[in-house]
Amino acid sequence: MGGMPVLPEPPYWAVIFTSRRNEQPGDGYEETAARMFDLAREQPGFLGYDTARSDGLGVTVCYWESEESIAAWKAQAEHAAAQREGRARWYDVYDLKVARVERAYGHTREP
Amino acid sequence: MGGMPVLPEPPYWAVIFTSRRNEQPGDGYEETAARMFDLAREQPGFLGYDTARSDGLGVTVCYWESEESIAAWKAQAEHAAAQREGRARWYDVYDLKVARVERAYGHTREP
Repeated sequence: MGGMPVLPEPPYWAVIFTSRRNEQPGDGYEETAARMFDLAREQPGFLGYDTARSDGLGVTVCYWESEESIAAWKAQAEHAAAQREGRARWYDVYDLKVARVERAYGHTREP
Repeated sequence: MGGMPVLPEPPYWAVIFTSRRNEQPGDGYEETAARMFDLAREQPGFLGYDTARSDGLGVTVCYWESEESIAAWKAQAEHAAAQREGRARWYDVYDLKVARVERAYGHTREP
């Protein structure tokens, strides 16, 4: 799974996707989610992602070079079909925010 | 815990905090994290947060009215002390990004 990708200096873009879903084993969600991350990696302008899920809440942040790369991913055919499935079956509720990352810093503990 | 807060129309600001930590029961992390969310709620300009942790990766997004409210929270004395503890003890690595939310939309499934 993704997490803590190495990213360029800002500015770049973040898509913040939060969701609650009914967890139904065998409903195809996990396979589709994994396929979407694989597909996203092949998209122009994709920079990486962070994702976690606990207490029924999923928080996924995908990073992109530009608004144009986000728009192209939203319209990608297989992804568009997955979005429709998500609305119809998997997600009780979700929110999506598009944000411009203005600054970033990190910390790694010294051994 | 937080999740899916009701937010105003954009623009507003998001602080995206991703982390990996050594999970040591009894190290005070959980208590401090809960206290920081309580404190943040009292800060001017705080709008809400989403947080999840799985596979060792924590993804927390806090929403704020303005960059000034983010700066004030960063400097808040008890929070500043917790940041020092985090760097010294709890987090192996973290990344923090400050982003301006430009647009947002959501979906709730019809019953």
